[in-house]
Amino acid sequence: MPAKLQPRRLWRDVTLFDGHDTLPEPMAVVVTGESIERVIPMRQLDRADAEACELFGQGGVLTPGLVDCHTHLVFGGSRAEEFESRLEGVSYEAIARQGGGILSTVRATRTASEEALFDMARPRLEALVRDGITTVEIKSGYGLSIADELKMLRVARRLGEELPVRVVTTLLGAHALPPEFKDDSDAYIDLVCREMIPAAAEQGLADAVDVFCEKIAFSVAQCERVFEAAEAHGLPIKAHAEQLSNLGGSAMAARHGALSADHIEYLDEAGVAALREAGSVAVLLPGAFHTLRETRLPPIAALREAGVPMAIATDANPGSSPLFMPTLMLNFACTLFRLTPREALAGMTANGARALGLHGQSLGRIVEGAPADLCLWDVETPAELAYAVQPGRLRQRIYRGEPSHG
Amino acid sequence: MPAKLQPRRLWRDVTLFDGHDTLPEPMAVVVTGESIERVIPMRQLDRADAEACELFGQGGVLTPGLVDCHTHLVFGGSRAEEFESRLEGVSYEAIARQGGGILSTVRATRTASEEALFDMARPRLEALVRDGITTVEIKSGYGLSIADELKMLRVARRLGEELPVRVVTTLLGAHALPPEFKDDSDAYIDLVCREMIPAAAEQGLADAVDVFCEKIAFSVAQCERVFEAAEAHGLPIKAHAEQLSNLGGSAMAARHGALSADHIEYLDEAGVAALREAGSVAVLLPGAFHTLRETRLPPIAALREAGVPMAIATDANPGSSPLFMPTLMLNFACTLFRLTPREALAGMTANGARALGLHGQSLGRIVEGAPADLCLWDVETPAELAYAVQPGRLRQRIYRGEPSHG
Ligand SMILES: [Zn+2]
Ligand SMILES: [Zn+2]
Repeated sequence: MPAKLQPRRLWRDVTLFDGHDTLPEPMAVVVTGESIERVIPMRQLDRADAEACELFGQGGVLTPGLVDCHTHLVFGGSRAEEFESRLEGVSYEAIARQGGGILSTVRATRTASEEALFDMARPRLEALVRDGITTVEIKSGYGLSIADELKMLRVARRLGEELPVRVVTTLLGAHALPPEFKDDSDAYIDLVCREMIPAAAEQGLADAVDVFCEKIAFSVAQCERVFEAAEAHGLPIKAHAEQLSNLGGSAMAARHGALSADHIEYLDEAGVAALREAGSVAVLLPGAFHTLRETRLPPIAALREAGVPMAIATDANPGSSPLFMPTLMLNFACTLFRLTPREALAGMTANGARALGLHGQSLGRIVEGAPADLCLWDVETPAELAYAVQPGRLRQRIYRGEPSHG
Repeated sequence: MPAKLQPRRLWRDVTLFDGHDTLPEPMAVVVTGESIERVIPMRQLDRADAEACELFGQGGVLTPGLVDCHTHLVFGGSRAEEFESRLEGVSYEAIARQGGGILSTVRATRTASEEALFDMARPRLEALVRDGITTVEIKSGYGLSIADELKMLRVARRLGEELPVRVVTTLLGAHALPPEFKDDSDAYIDLVCREMIPAAAEQGLADAVDVFCEKIAFSVAQCERVFEAAEAHGLPIKAHAEQLSNLGGSAMAARHGALSADHIEYLDEAGVAALREAGSVAVLLPGAFHTLRETRLPPIAALREAGVPMAIATDANPGSSPLFMPTLMLNFACTLFRLTPREALAGMTANGARALGLHGQSLGRIVEGAPADLCLWDVETPAELAYAVQPGRLRQRIYRGEPSHG
């Protein structure tokens, strides 16, 4: 289709955060079709330019569409009752005896039909979309069988087809040990490596493979086997690592060229160096930190000094982060982790996209040629998005060039 | 107007949280005009009943409209830049030298016209309303002169006239020492007592009088003088107290029959006993606790044991709680303060109303004769409102009997 048939849309007089920084003067952005055509200072926008475009927005703060690079949005059941029981004084042990915890989510997810899982996930994703998300990663990990993990991934794919948001899927078969494999975690890892990953790869259902590397989940050696299987099928890898202890999972993942290491409260200097050398992203999850009342902070100063890109994500999940609000994570990243507002915003735009391996196409940035995923906010400065928690400030969300609130 | 001319509106098959507890079976609620006419179990709703009403809602969780009993919603300027500077490593001292902190808000509030203050406060209040608030308290306290304090209170009153929400105003002249009275805080207290309170009372602008009792603000003796002046004008009182240290301000306020003592992280056993004896409400403000990264918890167990009613509020303000989202406070109350979801919800309904002295008319409750301020939520259980942070679950907000999202 010749370019002149595509609508040219103009946003003018905006304060522009480009994914890394706030530009020093008022800007204009022209979108053609699904792409950003021009990003120029207002003083360079001449009348002819402006008249050749349809005006779609004026004033406000324009940021890239937000990227949530770590979620577990698809799950069955609810853990609200467990949350309530704990606060009423029921012990963790008693809750576990009653079948609570992650395995209750696994049971509910296995029982639920694909249709039911879709219907439950949809309002959660809609909440993210209404708060500015244009790209979201969704993990499996509550099926823990081949059929149920693939079912979760199909639901994730379908969410991306039916809602105006890019969905990136991740197979997290090695999330927890399913009860059928109690006392034989190696056999479960065999299943993940020999059958689950090949099936997901063959059906094109997974864009990446993730693991939970922790004493309560899988060892570094087991996770490395999963990564080798992923590599054999051409799938990029990432890891939940150093959340509760320092096992060295992040460094091992980095040696395998991981897209990211996620959580990393217990990451040490060697781990930071490994991430830097591999070009991996440090994904920080302040929602889980808040919900678990964690006190150990990720090594922000060391990551900053080493130049490791930091991303921020919701970790939206029913147990440790039932928080379906990306802008809240901007506030948490600053208040709890002491990131600057600029770092927090970069963490949910350019660096979030990098954590998904999508930075090559300039996703998460406002530069010429980038996908036209944008958010126009009713605030004076980008910092206000992290400073105040105030739903309703998203004036316009632009997905693939089309204005929509979702 | 004869009752039969008023519309009778029915909500049926709802899970009902009545302001104190969740009822054990599905309920029906009939609203006539601005009041709740009947609250009955579904099994008692006969066909004739149902047909005499217009069906306004079915299923979901019905709670009283949320009550935010402590806010500073009206203010000029923004402290986003200060938030950013601090995270970029600028010291408190340097920020103070640059004119930051509360006095920057005072300057901006004094400079702003009444119209401008209204326009700035409106979207903040709209955010609360969209999240379920039907009654909100708004304090002055950034004017610190007679003209500017009254200006703030007029803006608060006008917000209540133009938006579908009950606004209760509080004069907080004794919030901070204005620069003109530097080194002579007693003279400022004289002004508050002898001129500001009488003027606010005479013009009907204040529903109550508040103070900030703290080393960095005003002494117990000074606050007591303010309370005596309030009493002389028939105004109920309340206090910001025991937030940063234990001065005994709450106990003194309780001796004066305070509606509430607010913050109270440092409240001791004697303070708890004083609140109990006076029937005062303990207003907990987890947003400020979060923003200030406070570690000292309010004495929840002692308050619970003593039967002191606990309310939860946003403390929405530009410095220590720029959080304009009441349902987030339900989560914070549970996660940070370890309240149960039931206590948190009671804290933003029945006990919030009690903190404003409005419990006599059953505000904040779903009982026959109470004002028909209600929220219908797309959740399965009331606990989910505290468990998950997820904007968009408010299906319907009913204010004075009229369904509206605000
Ligand atoms: Zn996770
Ligand atoms: Zn306050």
